[in-house]
Amino acid sequence: MTQPSPTRPVTVGPVTLGGPAFTVIAGPCAIESAEQFSLIAEKTRSLGAVMLRGGIFKLRTSPDSFQGLGNNGLAVAREIRDRVGMPVVSEVVDPRQIEVMCEAVDMFQVGTRNMYNYALLKELGLAGKPVLLKRGFSARLEEWMLAAEYILRGGNQDVVLCERGIRTFEVATRNTLDLSAVALIKQTFELPVLVDPSHATGLRSLIEPMSLAAAAAGADGLLLEVHNDPAAALSDSEQSLDFEDFSGLMDRLKKLLGGLNRPLHILP
Amino acid sequence: MTQPSPTRPVTVGPVTLGGPAFTVIAGPCAIESAEQFSLIAEKTRSLGAVMLRGGIFKLRTSPDSFQGLGNNGLAVAREIRDRVGMPVVSEVVDPRQIEVMCEAVDMFQVGTRNMYNYALLKELGLAGKPVLLKRGFSARLEEWMLAAEYILRGGNQDVVLCERGIRTFEVATRNTLDLSAVALIKQTFELPVLVDPSHATGLRSLIEPMSLAAAAAGADGLLLEVHNDPAAALSDSEQSLDFEDFSGLMDRLKKLLGGLNRPLHILP
Amino acid sequence: MTQPSPTRPVTVGPVTLGGPAFTVIAGPCAIESAEQFSLIAEKTRSLGAVMLRGGIFKLRTSPDSFQGLGNNGLAVAREIRDRVGMPVVSEVVDPRQIEVMCEAVDMFQVGTRNMYNYALLKELGLAGKPVLLKRGFSARLEEWMLAAEYILRGGNQDVVLCERGIRTFEVATRNTLDLSAVALIKQTFELPVLVDPSHATGLRSLIEPMSLAAAAAGADGLLLEVHNDPAAALSDSEQSLDFEDFSGLMDRLKKLLGGLNRPLHILP
Amino acid sequence: MTQPSPTRPVTVGPVTLGGPAFTVIAGPCAIESAEQFSLIAEKTRSLGAVMLRGGIFKLRTSPDSFQGLGNNGLAVAREIRDRVGMPVVSEVVDPRQIEVMCEAVDMFQVGTRNMYNYALLKELGLAGKPVLLKRGFSARLEEWMLAAEYILRGGNQDVVLCERGIRTFEVATRNTLDLSAVALIKQTFELPVLVDPSHATGLRSLIEPMSLAAAAAGADGLLLEVHNDPAAALSDSEQSLDFEDFSGLMDRLKKLLGGLNRPLHILP
Repeated sequence: MTQPSPTRPVTVGPVTLGGPAFTVIAGPCAIESAEQFSLIAEKTRSLGAVMLRGGIFKLRTSPDSFQGLGNNGLAVAREIRDRVGMPVVSEVVDPRQIEVMCEAVDMFQVGTRNMYNYALLKELGLAGKPVLLKRGFSARLEEWMLAAEYILRGGNQDVVLCERGIRTFEVATRNTLDLSAVALIKQTFELPVLVDPSHATGLRSLIEPMSLAAAAAGADGLLLEVHNDPAAALSDSEQSLDFEDFSGLMDRLKKLLGGLNRPLHILP
Repeated sequence: MTQPSPTRPVTVGPVTLGGPAFTVIAGPCAIESAEQFSLIAEKTRSLGAVMLRGGIFKLRTSPDSFQGLGNNGLAVAREIRDRVGMPVVSEVVDPRQIEVMCEAVDMFQVGTRNMYNYALLKELGLAGKPVLLKRGFSARLEEWMLAAEYILRGGNQDVVLCERGIRTFEVATRNTLDLSAVALIKQTFELPVLVDPSHATGLRSLIEPMSLAAAAAGADGLLLEVHNDPAAALSDSEQSLDFEDFSGLMDRLKKLLGGLNRPLHILP
Repeated sequence: MTQPSPTRPVTVGPVTLGGPAFTVIAGPCAIESAEQFSLIAEKTRSLGAVMLRGGIFKLRTSPDSFQGLGNNGLAVAREIRDRVGMPVVSEVVDPRQIEVMCEAVDMFQVGTRNMYNYALLKELGLAGKPVLLKRGFSARLEEWMLAAEYILRGGNQDVVLCERGIRTFEVATRNTLDLSAVALIKQTFELPVLVDPSHATGLRSLIEPMSLAAAAAGADGLLLEVHNDPAAALSDSEQSLDFEDFSGLMDRLKKLLGGLNRPLHILP
Repeated sequence: MTQPSPTRPVTVGPVTLGGPAFTVIAGPCAIESAEQFSLIAEKTRSLGAVMLRGGIFKLRTSPDSFQGLGNNGLAVAREIRDRVGMPVVSEVVDPRQIEVMCEAVDMFQVGTRNMYNYALLKELGLAGKPVLLKRGFSARLEEWMLAAEYILRGGNQDVVLCERGIRTFEVATRNTLDLSAVALIKQTFELPVLVDPSHATGLRSLIEPMSLAAAAAGADGLLLEVHNDPAAALSDSEQSLDFEDFSGLMDRLKKLLGGLNRPLHILP
């Protein structure tokens, strides 16, 4: 098991996930407006991100929380993606959304609450677009791989995993980031694996150290919440980086990657 | 909090859940054939069950496992229900199944893996039929109540909760049955709450003691896996009762309910 | 596994644990004074308790919390035990305390934090007194049985187990009471097993329903925190019953035991 | 919270824990013989370790497992330490061992099972030697810090923390290494913190990636199980590195530390 299993890269437009280079995906928890998303896209691209994240249809634990821009968000996503040249990944929560989302997003994200939603996974197996499959916060590694299998069986081989923390008894952090699972996946499965330190910790101050730790553990990239004004964000404000935080993180990440002999993926 | 909050009963055909009487729902994990479902229906009815459970569309952790009869199962469910006179509860896993299932089942079940599937819950809020909402195996009580809220907000007040064990570090049982949550719900929420000791423990020998414990803790009823031939069941064979086990359990349950001054709900 | 393994009863003075009768042990979290302990002893005895619990040497999670009366508590325990005629069980936290405690207590309690303290367990194997071994709040059933083995190996066969809740992700209750473990022990091990619903739930309102559920699950008895004035208790005030609560619980417990065909153990 | 709290270094002979340099402690799970311990000491020293670990009094979950060399191990520890010039850390499991161990070991280790053994911690507060306090595998961060407080209150300020994995529902690894806790400690507490990736993962292949991740997360050092012949080790054989694994790990660790601008602590 010590010999790493070769990862099969997944291509999303100009971006390769799971290849020799380390990839950073950044963006807000939810797309709030065209201005906001455009600003974040341009800034994070200039600092080293290659792909955008941003929620369009949000379904939150409480029905009272902000539920996303919905159809208006689709147009925003498409516009910014085309203008800035970064592929967009966004969460799908209902099999009936797949068709309409296909034109606006480049990669579907399955959130932690839907990892066991096999009806959705089966449909994504037929969707013809790459899928970012987050780990259920209480999913064993084996269940996570079986969830991926539901997508792969449909004929869609472009599945990328994302560790985002598991639920434990610890209350000092929102979840417990399980980097051992990342290292184990790299040694035993072919799928690329990213890490989301924002949701994993729920604490802004921990995002940088956990990002560096993820790279050192062998992850293929990061999924980061970055917001132009975290204090005013409509969701997840406590775990979003501002541009200055993100810039500092990218500086230290590049140095660390040097020590690991791994390049950072950059867009031309 | 010591004064119990009054439970608002939910009616499903001739059955009242959450009323003064204790209710037993029984049936196989999955409907395997008309003969099997008919046999189980008649036998469990004669022993004191008032409602039938049985999976039609199953989505299992592994895509290789038996996935249910699908549309054929709908016809079976309707036929047996009408002939035996017991309402049927069955799991829905996709919002697109709701319409077709409406004619064959009397109550929708949301399984543990879909408790966080808010798109499905929202749709069930509009479905016009009672919903049995199982607890996610890693859901905090508060999250479970918020999931119920997604259904209630749509205008559907007929929500019944079902505790089915939570995931813990313990490996001696499949899950850990959380009866404290049941007692706490009875004291603080209006929704009826059942207990599923079959999935909670995963061990046949524990179903009876946990059924009795559930009644003593204040649950409004049980959801039990009963099979005519557990060893040959296509799924969950280790946690299904045979008719003899079920008969013995019902005998001891009646005696216990006597000591609790609570009647057993029976069909005329 | 469905055939219960015969439990080997353990005798503590006039009390039999694990025999045909159901046993209630009651008392304060900590012995605070002779007056308090005497009052609680007499009152709980008159309501049906047969044995007293009460901490003498407490070691709490925070070094700032009340740590017990220490040596003064020993004299109190002995005096009240002899006068009221109820055996006393008290926690031992250091192998060097065993000798001095031997004269004042009838049974040693190993608390949840010391279940893995094998040096202490080995010493208790040689102590010549019954031991009440609480489950570590994160101990698997197998580890708990191996901890008991450390005592049994020393030649001390008088070990009684006590389930007191395990640590899970649930925050609505202090711990999650694992009654499946109790039922499983009754079916597979010879040692008597009690339940402590006070520490398990941490909420006064849940103690009665969980006590009834424990009896229905097959437990051999209860370990209950009862205090003359819970609001003024120096520790665990939120999970202690007052005399009125305890009286009501005992009434309902007796009725339930009737439905289970099990008598309540009473002192002459 | 983003500004790291300054760590207060702890000195153990020629070694500084929690200073600017990153520290590697290595050695077998248990000292098996003078030859074995000497060989491991010399080899690990030559590869960059500065301190030795090795169990003398082991108390294992099962009373049937190897329990260490006991008093014979003390003489071995002292002899090798003096000859090779590396301080030795070894686990203490009983307050009555402290005095005899004081002459042979340079630092006491409190194992995960004894983190809640407050009687032992209090005694170590008076022992006049540094203490390595492992996290209980089910301890919240706050409880761990309160356990440290039991030692600090006695006047012993030389406490070093060690994260060694927590118990979760995941079964693919022995425990789940919680590096977020390490980063949070570095930001909010003064005590140095090490990481033990051997016990955390229980899998040899994960030790190197988790060691690198620990360094990237900000840990002050590592506690590694290294054995001359892991397959023949009397305990923990599956999670011990051989000399070749250890040498490779040290090479990659040095490169990574370069990318973090942190030197490796070496003995003259």
